Amino acid sequence: MREDFVPNEHRGLLKIDLQPSPLNKDPLGAVSGNAGQPATDGSKGRSRNDDAYLDDLLGPDAMSEDEAAFIEDDDGAGYAEAPNDHGKRPAHTISGPLPKRPARHNVSNIWQPQVHIPFQPGSTPWKGNRRYLCLNLTGFVWTVDQETHHTVTVEFYDRYQHRDFHFTDPYKYDKACLNDKGTLFSCASSSQHPALLYYRPHETWTARTDWRTQLPVGEEVTSISLSESCIVATTSAGYVRIYSLFGVPLKMYRQKSTPAVTCASWRDYVMTIGNGPMGGDGITRLLYTIENVKRDEICQSEDILALPSGAGLKSVFFSDKGDPCIYDSTGVLLICLHWRTPGQAKWVPLLDTKTMERLASGKKEETYWPVAVANDKFHCIILKGGEDSPYFPRPLLSDFDFRVPVSENTAVDDDEEDAAAAEQKNLEEQYVRTSLRHSLVSDLVEHTNATSAQKSEVPALEREVDKVLLQLLANECREGEERGMKALEIATLMRDRTGQMLTAAGRIASRFQRDILGEKITQLAERRLVGLVDDDEV
Amino acid sequence: MREDFVPNEHRGLLKIDLQPSPLNKDPLGAVSGNAGQPATDGSKGRSRNDDAYLDDLLGPDAMSEDEAAFIEDDDGAGYAEAPNDHGKRPAHTISGPLPKRPARHNVSNIWQPQVHIPFQPGSTPWKGNRRYLCLNLTGFVWTVDQETHHTVTVEFYDRYQHRDFHFTDPYKYDKACLNDKGTLFSCASSSQHPALLYYRPHETWTARTDWRTQLPVGEEVTSISLSESCIVATTSAGYVRIYSLFGVPLKMYRQKSTPAVTCASWRDYVMTIGNGPMGGDGITRLLYTIENVKRDEICQSEDILALPSGAGLKSVFFSDKGDPCIYDSTGVLLICLHWRTPGQAKWVPLLDTKTMERLASGKKEETYWPVAVANDKFHCIILKGGEDSPYFPRPLLSDFDFRVPVSENTAVDDDEEDAAAAEQKNLEEQYVRTSLRHSLVSDLVEHTNATSAQKSEVPALEREVDKVLLQLLANECREGEERGMKALEIATLMRDRTGQMLTAAGRIASRFQRDILGEKITQLAERRLVGLVDDDEV
Amino acid sequence: MREDFVPNEHRGLLKIDLQPSPLNKDPLGAVSGNAGQPATDGSKGRSRNDDAYLDDLLGPDAMSEDEAAFIEDDDGAGYAEAPNDHGKRPAHTISGPLPKRPARHNVSNIWQPQVHIPFQPGSTPWKGNRRYLCLNLTGFVWTVDQETHHTVTVEFYDRYQHRDFHFTDPYKYDKACLNDKGTLFSCASSSQHPALLYYRPHETWTARTDWRTQLPVGEEVTSISLSESCIVATTSAGYVRIYSLFGVPLKMYRQKSTPAVTCASWRDYVMTIGNGPMGGDGITRLLYTIENVKRDEICQSEDILALPSGAGLKSVFFSDKGDPCIYDSTGVLLICLHWRTPGQAKWVPLLDTKTMERLASGKKEETYWPVAVANDKFHCIILKGGEDSPYFPRPLLSDFDFRVPVSENTAVDDDEEDAAAAEQKNLEEQYVRTSLRHSLVSDLVEHTNATSAQKSEVPALEREVDKVLLQLLANECREGEERGMKALEIATLMRDRTGQMLTAAGRIASRFQRDILGEKITQLAERRLVGLVDDDEV
Repeated sequence: MREDFVPNEHRGLLKIDLQPSPLNKDPLGAVSGNAGQPATDGSKGRSRNDDAYLDDLLGPDAMSEDEAAFIEDDDGAGYAEAPNDHGKRPAHTISGPLPKRPARHNVSNIWQPQVHIPFQPGSTPWKGNRRYLCLNLTGFVWTVDQETHHTVTVEFYDRYQHRDFHFTDPYKYDKACLNDKGTLFSCASSSQHPALLYYRPHETWTARTDWRTQLPVGEEVTSISLSESCIVATTSAGYVRIYSLFGVPLKMYRQKSTPAVTCASWRDYVMTIGNGPMGGDGITRLLYTIENVKRDEICQSEDILALPSGAGLKSVFFSDKGDPCIYDSTGVLLICLHWRTPGQAKWVPLLDTKTMERLASGKKEETYWPVAVANDKFHCIILKGGEDSPYFPRPLLSDFDFRVPVSENTAVDDDEEDAAAAEQKNLEEQYVRTSLRHSLVSDLVEHTNATSAQKSEVPALEREVDKVLLQLLANECREGEERGMKALEIATLMRDRTGQMLTAAGRIASRFQRDILGEKITQLAERRLVGLVDDDEV
Repeated sequence: MREDFVPNEHRGLLKIDLQPSPLNKDPLGAVSGNAGQPATDGSKGRSRNDDAYLDDLLGPDAMSEDEAAFIEDDDGAGYAEAPNDHGKRPAHTISGPLPKRPARHNVSNIWQPQVHIPFQPGSTPWKGNRRYLCLNLTGFVWTVDQETHHTVTVEFYDRYQHRDFHFTDPYKYDKACLNDKGTLFSCASSSQHPALLYYRPHETWTARTDWRTQLPVGEEVTSISLSESCIVATTSAGYVRIYSLFGVPLKMYRQKSTPAVTCASWRDYVMTIGNGPMGGDGITRLLYTIENVKRDEICQSEDILALPSGAGLKSVFFSDKGDPCIYDSTGVLLICLHWRTPGQAKWVPLLDTKTMERLASGKKEETYWPVAVANDKFHCIILKGGEDSPYFPRPLLSDFDFRVPVSENTAVDDDEEDAAAAEQKNLEEQYVRTSLRHSLVSDLVEHTNATSAQKSEVPALEREVDKVLLQLLANECREGEERGMKALEIATLMRDRTGQMLTAAGRIASRFQRDILGEKITQLAERRLVGLVDDDEV
Repeated sequence: MREDFVPNEHRGLLKIDLQPSPLNKDPLGAVSGNAGQPATDGSKGRSRNDDAYLDDLLGPDAMSEDEAAFIEDDDGAGYAEAPNDHGKRPAHTISGPLPKRPARHNVSNIWQPQVHIPFQPGSTPWKGNRRYLCLNLTGFVWTVDQETHHTVTVEFYDRYQHRDFHFTDPYKYDKACLNDKGTLFSCASSSQHPALLYYRPHETWTARTDWRTQLPVGEEVTSISLSESCIVATTSAGYVRIYSLFGVPLKMYRQKSTPAVTCASWRDYVMTIGNGPMGGDGITRLLYTIENVKRDEICQSEDILALPSGAGLKSVFFSDKGDPCIYDSTGVLLICLHWRTPGQAKWVPLLDTKTMERLASGKKEETYWPVAVANDKFHCIILKGGEDSPYFPRPLLSDFDFRVPVSENTAVDDDEEDAAAAEQKNLEEQYVRTSLRHSLVSDLVEHTNATSAQKSEVPALEREVDKVLLQLLANECREGEERGMKALEIATLMRDRTGQMLTAAGRIASRFQRDILGEKITQLAERRLVGLVDDDEV
């Protein structure tokens, strides 16, 4: 009877087992730009000093005791950390013989909600005696457990701008954030000290400017984030605490959704994510709030993070343009649209990694460890052989183009008809994706002191959207007279208000001798010119 | 011990059993306007052609195998459909011996959240081999299961404007929407094809303009909606997919509350409803989002659909004026007020069918199948004898006036005092209802390119509200001098700012010789004239 | 096995037992202003008439049958009331042998969500045959159960303005609200009558102006609130019903989160609180809505009341300045900031009573019964000896200063270094608290017809904030040259835009001979003067 208490739909979880990751001999220091390259071939960019240093650190026991140091979050109070778990309690926590909670044996047939365990974006769990505390496009922070203390190392991609450093860490920091301005750490309380925050700026005009601050006794840090203008900590007491970069407490308030799960920030924007109410699948919904700390304005208040039923959150970060992005346990990367206006946020899929062509053969088995969204690409680390997180030496970064999953990603075929259908689908995807980019940039320009480069992107993307529409229209004309109504509808979708694009559309119609269509496009252009918009309602 | 696992308050559900509906010999084609008529007497409006056609279709087996084809939504993934279920899993899914999930037997004493099963507004479940896919004031779409294929029939009320049609359906469409512009269908995936959307416009200027589009493999349609400007599909992958009327994918995004339940649309407004988090009653809350697709603006974001504890959603549609309406399993019709402004939506009861006078005797046992809100009336089909959905031939439509359940609906009595109390209650109800209508029309005029007829409704309704207040004031004056404070308060509620209404109020006071009151009304009128509003705070 | 079905983290609840409160011989009538005074010493202000009256009422049986009349809310329908329970079902409802639900014995190992039980702010449960229905800074309403009827007494602090009264109550009112304008009561339905609302204004210009209104049959009042402009009742049918002060029904709508828990109002603002969806801790989240009834605008729509995991709501009220405040079962008082703008509400802790110095010794065991927030103080009744609510005679009110829990509240020490650290912490707390006050008053002035006194508070508080910053800056200068970066950051936080404060900051820097800092402050002042704000983004 005991075997049956797990609902059928969740039983699969019981079978998931953490696999040891093969010791990956890849070098450090390779910057993104090697899309599609297998993660095993690179060797560029690794300095000799690093080699010696790493050889010293990596012993035969690096892979042993896999997960042994894994702390479990028994009470959901939120101080344990397990970023790679799919946002759920691992299945074995329900039935497993862990000495920490013998009582569970007796209550195992009681149904319980599953909460999301807090995690720090870009961090990995312990493997052997080491783990990454932070891994992003600026650099990475990793720590080694030396039993009585830890040793922390901070390395940068851009060594002209920043100098790597490492230090002996008696506080055993378990969370870190890294950006161009500094590094933020936090540790749990111990018998010697309460929970601490520690910030170390990279550049200073005074002798020593790092600082430490204490949380009230009994309060633990559940997640931290660092931007160019502020520091945020969520705590086990349910508070969001905001500090200036030099540690002046600016404000604090109760987080509405607790226990906290994670947070991220970008300039003055802070995104906090917490456990919201429980969904019909028995798992808590993740709710997020985005706040502009300087203006003291909430952009999105406890909005639902759009994850599919049963899915978890793998990472959250701001893109290089400052838009919030998430990567979920189903392998989908999403970006948040219209998030600067309260109540308008939407999560749009940028890429479903499961549908990428490289996986189409079905022979490759790999997953992707999300790192960043930058230069209109998804930057990640390819994980093979069932790995659940990157290990040492740091593997290469890969990057992939976006593809909105508008329709099936069909491989290009020899069959001519199929090829036409595939081209049509590609154009449709391009239309949706370019419209999305246009929306994102329009929002940026409308709400911020945008650069002139950013401002010029708006009309450029508008033109790009219309060009895709022209291609779609040409396809409809090619198909035949009976596609006229659809062709006309495509013409009405054009954004250009100068008439140029509709003139081009008319020319396409006449080239294919679609005269009725051509007439109707001319009428549409005329109505638009005199300001008769085709809105049903304003 | 096994019998006791159902919480006391839900035990009643176990006793509910679906009753076979009597074969209802009513004709088709009768348009609304027969309020109060029993559903068994009509015979007007049915053409001879229809007769022959229907006789051919309706055989003795029409009523057999009741519910046999009823698909159950085992995993909440959202592709099964059971519109008449009260928004809950039927009680027998918990303990019943269904062959599809033997595992349930063993886990039956595990408590589980109840999710709302997806449904298509206006559709009915299979009875025998037929069902309605859509039934509204434009017409109705029904399908007959012919084992190897279905036959689909689309009929209209207005046969001058539209021509009925039917076709052989190899795809076995299980969802449909119908409006004045076209018909939209969708079907589940099969071994031959992925899930499909199929749209067929009623009027065309080209030869053939219907189109079909495929969803990505593995993704099923959970609900569809059709308006005059776009097509929406929610899917089992948790996406909302928006297409133009001719099938150009316009955008897609993740639905925040999944699994999806249903959707509806009107012009550029799309309302999606999904399973939100679980309430204290163990049932998921329904959350809805209303979006203007053209302007890419969200009107209400994941707001809570205001249902009482334990109740389900029976239907959702937009009124003829474009306001969202719901009908719940407790027999209450509600309209959404202030829904165009983010965060301002309120659900106001228009009618509690349980309190209608026709049920007052207690002898009638009937329920109402919601069809539409139009011409300030509730249009529905009366279901008798425990029926849970309309069957063939299509029963007559009935319509009922609104009555906001401000107080008990007391029958008018011989007793004079009771009669006065009843009149008072009627006036109070009229005041609340007229104020509501005023708000709805004001919103419409403020937010849309309203017609001049709509614009003139605002002052007309304002006047109507004030007239009811005058009657209430007269009643207070009649009651006696000691009701002066209440009478004065009623005067302050008047909306008219010209002074006319307050003058009328003063006249009423003097007719009943309430001099102090009269004086105070005069003072109020003077303060208003000089702009001294009685607001505590602005 | 039965003992183990309660999750470990909730087991503590099983051990909580209600303690009888010692018969407290304190007098009535003492107004707030006796902070820190033990609740047993006062005797001022009690009139002789009251003495005799109370002696008559208080017999030896006053303390007997503790909690015997405690009604339990079996089905969560919301008509039972237990205001002092920590917002949860008492632990014994799970396993206890209550005769009302024998079925529970058999289902006791089924996990169930916990809902918050409705309560009336400021009311106490029955103890013996009496209870407070309302207790606030205006006065208090209490009732005595005389078996066939109740006797209700209303007493005021300000007896010049109002006259105490009492009456025989055949309806057995179980809820009351009291303010300067009147008293509102409600009672449950009985075999003789449906649920009633009863309002009695204090001052009238006509003979008799109290009124009673009935709810529809089968509908019970779950909570009521009274302001200077309207009356609100939430009901078991899930409706919010709004009446004018003289009983004209103004509007009604469905409450989105049910069952209702409580409500409060201030002028035209109404706050309703209901059971929202269930959190990961198995307890429903409380959701609140704040509406301006006169303007028909929603300020906050179903926002999450920010309570820590597992905590309950003890009381809710508006401060004397009109800001919503809550007091939770963890002893924290919070105020709502930015609540007048939709989606901007934040709950900020004003005081964590557990960290107050009077509890620092660890010898005192007391809790606080929240009464009001007025004059920038927390007014409450000190409960000792495990009492859970005040009893008769009415104990004295105490008041406490606010202290935002920015950091540990360390007692001032002899050690000089510790003293400096403590002062630093105090300044930081002062900075956060003063900034909060500034925000609250700015909001008030921006959104209301503020008085000129209120308007002048804004610049005064801005100055106060900057003065604290100057002190913090001086501290950094004192610490040494290497604190320059932090000192400069503090200077950038200053709000003053006239340059005065930055000049003062420069002077402090030069007094401590921090020349580089002084230069940088001068540069900052210059950039500000020419309008070069230091915003990354607008």
